[in-house]
Amino acid sequence: MDIFEILGLVGTIAFAVSGAIVAMEEEYDILGVFVLGMATAFGGGIVRNLLIEIDMSVFWSQGLYLGAAALAILIVFVLPLPFITQWMRALVFFDAIGLAAFAVQGAMYAVEKAFPVTAVMVAAMLTGIGGGMIRDLLAGRKPLVLRDEIYALWALIAGLAIGLLKLRSTWELLAVFGLVVLFRMLSVHYKWKLPRRSLRSGDAGSAGPGAGG
Amino acid sequence: MDIFEILGLVGTIAFAVSGAIVAMEEEYDILGVFVLGMATAFGGGIVRNLLIEIDMSVFWSQGLYLGAAALAILIVFVLPLPFITQWMRALVFFDAIGLAAFAVQGAMYAVEKAFPVTAVMVAAMLTGIGGGMIRDLLAGRKPLVLRDEIYALWALIAGLAIGLLKLRSTWELLAVFGLVVLFRMLSVHYKWKLPRRSLRSGDAGSAGPGAGG
Amino acid sequence: MDIFEILGLVGTIAFAVSGAIVAMEEEYDILGVFVLGMATAFGGGIVRNLLIEIDMSVFWSQGLYLGAAALAILIVFVLPLPFITQWMRALVFFDAIGLAAFAVQGAMYAVEKAFPVTAVMVAAMLTGIGGGMIRDLLAGRKPLVLRDEIYALWALIAGLAIGLLKLRSTWELLAVFGLVVLFRMLSVHYKWKLPRRSLRSGDAGSAGPGAGG
Repeated sequence: MDIFEILGLVGTIAFAVSGAIVAMEEEYDILGVFVLGMATAFGGGIVRNLLIEIDMSVFWSQGLYLGAAALAILIVFVLPLPFITQWMRALVFFDAIGLAAFAVQGAMYAVEKAFPVTAVMVAAMLTGIGGGMIRDLLAGRKPLVLRDEIYALWALIAGLAIGLLKLRSTWELLAVFGLVVLFRMLSVHYKWKLPRRSLRSGDAGSAGPGAGG
Repeated sequence: MDIFEILGLVGTIAFAVSGAIVAMEEEYDILGVFVLGMATAFGGGIVRNLLIEIDMSVFWSQGLYLGAAALAILIVFVLPLPFITQWMRALVFFDAIGLAAFAVQGAMYAVEKAFPVTAVMVAAMLTGIGGGMIRDLLAGRKPLVLRDEIYALWALIAGLAIGLLKLRSTWELLAVFGLVVLFRMLSVHYKWKLPRRSLRSGDAGSAGPGAGG
Repeated sequence: MDIFEILGLVGTIAFAVSGAIVAMEEEYDILGVFVLGMATAFGGGIVRNLLIEIDMSVFWSQGLYLGAAALAILIVFVLPLPFITQWMRALVFFDAIGLAAFAVQGAMYAVEKAFPVTAVMVAAMLTGIGGGMIRDLLAGRKPLVLRDEIYALWALIAGLAIGLLKLRSTWELLAVFGLVVLFRMLSVHYKWKLPRRSLRSGDAGSAGPGAGG
């Protein structure tokens, strides 16, 4: 196993756990918890594979990842509540590792297939955020990755850097990985959010005094 | 037509009807009813085809299934309400046939392609439940198959049996089919549910007296 | 660029703008606005490509379309509110152009691949409405195209005409295109809706006097 396979494994487990926790919050049964966990862990990669035409047998050959994700989901399902609460704090960090590892991995696949830079960016972003989007859809929620503290942007920038600067060496890719983790954690810590604008009237200022809520 | 094609046809019709009824419950127009019905009938197979790389032309060649599903949807749309109410009871049984036929069919496809046992299980389950999940997503509902009386599990077990025990003969596959129908109907009748756990505080016991909601 | 590429470009931009506006209505951040805009503009084509097995490299080679959609989303994001309000009226017309151009394009792809007429119809409809459906799913809404003034039907009929009458010349296809735009605009103007039926009891008449809600 090289370093990226190890990081990918950590990310897979983190994503599987996050899917399992969302499913438990929605009171899905154990199989629903399992399906949501697996969909979160592997959904991003599957969407990316479809978009840049990677053979699906690659997916099915990664038995170690499938097994590790399944085991992690099972453990979360039986873990006492205080442990889960504690884990949820650590989860933000592991999830950042997943985001970074998947973004780098997605970009590398697109580069290998000689797709243009736009495709490298999309592959990096979709691999990073696709699982979380599928998780939220299956849980009947609006995709958090499109509204929360800055998340998808770091995967997109990672794809841009890898595609544009033609980063290929392990050290360069590890640097990209580290920067994605760092900026994601900074985003969470300082509550960085991307600009948004409301289309409701009155978004340009506060209402006058005495105005009802 | 062999026995599995006939069972698959029954299942396709049952799934199409279930999609049409959900769409009518959501007050979709006739074309929406049609789209939801067809998506329910064929969505599971399409997702499976993408995941285990079956040629899509197989899908388009099944004119009989497409026509039967379309006709069934049309009939449901014009049927008087009392008939639909009665049908809904029979529907649980037909739906179980669909679940079983699709699970066996999905597993057989994955076996033919020499995928590993995990892929056989996933193919069986996704073919069985994928249509229902897409139906619920398109209707803005949380996927029922992940929360309701035991459903997806029987498809998963069918895939495991077929993949692990290398069941190939018509009789063996028919036995698996029959067991899935049987256990699904038992699940509905006895309201068998898989364990679930809530993450809300207080799931382990009641709050003390005087505690606010 | 031939006439269909120009119409497809107009449609792509209109769809991208509609996705961006929905995302802003849901208070997504700028990247969410971007993702929803791009998913609306290209989602229908991607679903169609998967279903009729068009090589994805075709998708990635259309740099002009990707760039135009991205630019349109950016402009909408910074545009003052009154402009957007005005644009939303024009948008119905541009969106009709997108529906028509995408339906014709989808049908042509399916015809090229020698798929049967049913597949031509589905390809036309999915290319036309798929983006809007994905947009609504990602925004946590029920797909509007399945409930609103007649929309998907015109794409379906365009596919039927092209598949059945074997329309191939530019003039024939332009006529289909024009008719889809015309009938879509008529549907909006006269509020044409397809029949629907409710499954709630009492849909056949009002409750008697004094009946509680």
